Amino acid sequence: MTAHCTSADTPRPHRKLDRYRPDDEARAFLDSQLVGHLAYVSAGGRPHAVPMMYARVGDVVYLHGSTGAGTALRTRGGPLPASFSVTSVEGLVLARAAVHHSLQFRSVVVHGELSTVTDEHAKRVAFDVLVDAVAAGRSAQCRPASSKELASTAVLALSMDQVDHKARLHGVVDDAEDLALPFWAGVVPLAVVAGEPQPDAGVSGRAAPAGCWPSG
Amino acid sequence: MTAHCTSADTPRPHRKLDRYRPDDEARAFLDSQLVGHLAYVSAGGRPHAVPMMYARVGDVVYLHGSTGAGTALRTRGGPLPASFSVTSVEGLVLARAAVHHSLQFRSVVVHGELSTVTDEHAKRVAFDVLVDAVAAGRSAQCRPASSKELASTAVLALSMDQVDHKARLHGVVDDAEDLALPFWAGVVPLAVVAGEPQPDAGVSGRAAPAGCWPSG
Repeated sequence: MTAHCTSADTPRPHRKLDRYRPDDEARAFLDSQLVGHLAYVSAGGRPHAVPMMYARVGDVVYLHGSTGAGTALRTRGGPLPASFSVTSVEGLVLARAAVHHSLQFRSVVVHGELSTVTDEHAKRVAFDVLVDAVAAGRSAQCRPASSKELASTAVLALSMDQVDHKARLHGVVDDAEDLALPFWAGVVPLAVVAGEPQPDAGVSGRAAPAGCWPSG
Repeated sequence: MTAHCTSADTPRPHRKLDRYRPDDEARAFLDSQLVGHLAYVSAGGRPHAVPMMYARVGDVVYLHGSTGAGTALRTRGGPLPASFSVTSVEGLVLARAAVHHSLQFRSVVVHGELSTVTDEHAKRVAFDVLVDAVAAGRSAQCRPASSKELASTAVLALSMDQVDHKARLHGVVDDAEDLALPFWAGVVPLAVVAGEPQPDAGVSGRAAPAGCWPSG
């Protein structure tokens, strides 16, 4: 996030290995988040970034939404190279020196090949997983998609060919000669929290189903 | 974010206009956020997505961090086409039908040309704005960057040539025939909140400076 954010405080920090299988830590992080940003090259040759809901199954990230990526896929007629970035900002780092201001964060960037899920069974499985990412178990607690609805919904699959996993969670790092400066320094933690559920008209009970994102 | 997220409930919804100057709403949204995702094409020709801190000045988005984009810029020897996506997820939409599950969100995608800020004065101004994005007024309440520190910090500038502004904030939309189904439906609001500040060692006073992101 900054020039100083490539260091990490995990036992095996700043993972950036070619073609390694995503490890448990990267998988767990992906499973803890809901939205990422897809980068692809449009049919016209320009890079595009677009926010998308996602869910992981094995070494595949399923993406929900119809975007220009679908157009680019059709134009190309086959898998499209793509990159998908998921980030959780966990705090502001206020240092005594301007140059050491930073963020606490975790991020995973997946590089792979993007394709459209066309098989109806595979699409239904992926679709259920996407609904369950919004609220655990939710796909069994609502009306399932009809075949027609499923056909009109775009589901994309991104292979997890390479995974870059970063974390910057080590707080303030100021230079020794700045420690006596009279400026507040520290971390302001940030978190995503759920507010009071707002039931739709005609729904009794204010409580949303258990398992809504973010969990924990 | 989903196939149903391109609609919006603002008076002029789903803005997607070619080459229009960013309007006040898109500017205000960009100014309310701290992190976005840059998409660019690497020197090797692959799309990359990378999370970056940013701040807007006029019709330029300044990005903080050294990334592969810097390498691609050097290889190209001039401005690099890029796209920068900023999203705020504001709620989960749980519908009675699986297919109508969605997210409440706002997003802005900026398309433009990416370049490196090399002029020392321009770089210092951009750097101060980036520090002030973490906490309003903070650049005047810490030790300024030395010329050497500034020289070793990467600041990129993205021109706001085209801006796509989307919002999906209209709650649950179920089909009439599903309204009597016995499933909870509604919106679970989400927000980023700041926790108790954690002062660095040797800092007295738990209170972080006023103006820390997120404001309001």
